[in-house]
Amino acid sequence: MADQVITLSDVAAAAGVSLSTASKALNGTDRISQATREHVRTTADRLGFRHNALARSFARGRSQTIGVLTHRASNPFTRVVLATAATELGAKEQAILLYDARIGDRDVTESILQLRARRIDGVIVIGTGTSFPSPSLTSRFDVPVIYAFTFTEDPDDVTITADDDEIGRLAVRHLLSKGRRKIAHITAEPHDNAAQRRAAGAQEVLADAGLEWVSPVRFGRWREGWGAEAAAELLAEVPDVDAIFCGSDAIARGAERVVRASGREVPGDVALIGVDNWEQLMHDQRVSRHLTTIDVGLEEIGRQVAAHLLEPDPQPGIRYVTPQVVTAETT
Amino acid sequence: MADQVITLSDVAAAAGVSLSTASKALNGTDRISQATREHVRTTADRLGFRHNALARSFARGRSQTIGVLTHRASNPFTRVVLATAATELGAKEQAILLYDARIGDRDVTESILQLRARRIDGVIVIGTGTSFPSPSLTSRFDVPVIYAFTFTEDPDDVTITADDDEIGRLAVRHLLSKGRRKIAHITAEPHDNAAQRRAAGAQEVLADAGLEWVSPVRFGRWREGWGAEAAAELLAEVPDVDAIFCGSDAIARGAERVVRASGREVPGDVALIGVDNWEQLMHDQRVSRHLTTIDVGLEEIGRQVAAHLLEPDPQPGIRYVTPQVVTAETT
Repeated sequence: MADQVITLSDVAAAAGVSLSTASKALNGTDRISQATREHVRTTADRLGFRHNALARSFARGRSQTIGVLTHRASNPFTRVVLATAATELGAKEQAILLYDARIGDRDVTESILQLRARRIDGVIVIGTGTSFPSPSLTSRFDVPVIYAFTFTEDPDDVTITADDDEIGRLAVRHLLSKGRRKIAHITAEPHDNAAQRRAAGAQEVLADAGLEWVSPVRFGRWREGWGAEAAAELLAEVPDVDAIFCGSDAIARGAERVVRASGREVPGDVALIGVDNWEQLMHDQRVSRHLTTIDVGLEEIGRQVAAHLLEPDPQPGIRYVTPQVVTAETT
Repeated sequence: MADQVITLSDVAAAAGVSLSTASKALNGTDRISQATREHVRTTADRLGFRHNALARSFARGRSQTIGVLTHRASNPFTRVVLATAATELGAKEQAILLYDARIGDRDVTESILQLRARRIDGVIVIGTGTSFPSPSLTSRFDVPVIYAFTFTEDPDDVTITADDDEIGRLAVRHLLSKGRRKIAHITAEPHDNAAQRRAAGAQEVLADAGLEWVSPVRFGRWREGWGAEAAAELLAEVPDVDAIFCGSDAIARGAERVVRASGREVPGDVALIGVDNWEQLMHDQRVSRHLTTIDVGLEEIGRQVAAHLLEPDPQPGIRYVTPQVVTAETT
């Protein structure tokens, strides 16, 4: 059988006070002696009384619910940000109402009307990455809107996202720290913002060290098959390449297979570093790791989004989370 | 500037009817002519009117919110079930309120009181897998409770989960269909329910084919490093093994590296199949796949949980989702 719900009347009766005194003691809405307040609160706690959160929200005109708009909730990166934000918000008694794939022009007005009718307290827009911008929806809500793992074309939007330039810098700095000098880069489409920024950050550090890529950057796709194909070309062109910065872990897995199949040692002959911290995200693997990689900070994005959304006045502009090198067996 | 919220008065004025008629037309709570009802509804749609969902919930004593209890929301499998369920529920205007890591004895009573105070419409308990049981909480709520990607010790609990026996059967059936006869199995801890059931299902199909494992099942950990270590032992003991059923994709990745390093071809000499559909979950990769694997159906679990929770009377007992073989380059 389910437990009984404890009402305010139960608390008042048990504490020997009127309903109105019990209400004042618990809501802090009127003057009342400190002793009575404490007595009522202790009684309420002992009985396991909880305010009817729904009634309270209704009185305030707020729902303790955050609207979440995703481009594609089944995207693996979106899921990490979503689950982390939902966890943090839940710890603060905030629910989330998720509308997936309704950011496009045709659907967004409908989503906005529904969320406003629901009296949501704020909105999070979660992207699938930093490859392409999201439309700015901030002006269409009268509650705070935060963008996560994406970016918009409005510099005043509150955005928390990955730092692709710094990811590129970290990757090459790490390879240089391992004594590598003949470094190549295999990455995704040339018009992809994340691929571009990572390549630019990496090249900046290379130039500071007086170096150049040993072969032009190979732009292709975020895929294991592309990693294998590009690595084969690269080894044919530059047989003594000593390190490959791969734009993602999937690309790195493909590259590694081809490097090993060529008879080269990893990392002895060729060091490999990826991006995404795939093993951690997918396998919860903090020990016994295989691929050296860069954690872009998706969980940190989820945490910061939840924290900033509940602030009274979130600061406009882009905040970048700090990426981290995760060293394993391939460097 | 934010759009204006359209009120019921706006609708009544625009439709030229009284507030009470407008309310009846939209709520269907009293007799009213079909023509008037349609006229008011069309007007409401044109203006973009939405019922105040919060007021409506309050009147019904329901919050259109589902409580979600997770063992560990940062678990990669939990995230898939969570994101899929949240998407399906969002499409039905149901929010989720997530309490993470509060299923343990000490915290669960607090979680239950909070969720009840919130007037949630139902509860989902999401596990991190089928390795170990969850405590049964069904009797502590007066709303439906569904268990996802876990199991409990109460056979009447409504549970939607993975079919580990069938996963094992599918894996060996697939290897037999590729002409393999010298099959080995590398998997996780022997006291892990999922590892046990997968091994049992696999052995059943082997026995039906008049075969035995070429070497005793190697129980260890759900880790890439263990896959590599166990594969090295296996190749030393049975050099002509022609297929390995790996209990997870992580184990398969480790095994593959060692098999290739020994000079054997994959799948020419040794075929490999994993479990989890890691590339899909992590990389959204439906094309250009590398590892043959079994999809356990996590997204299907998320979808079914959302569908069954909103049914008036979800059927007690365990429902298994159907796993699927995903054929790629390693078989």
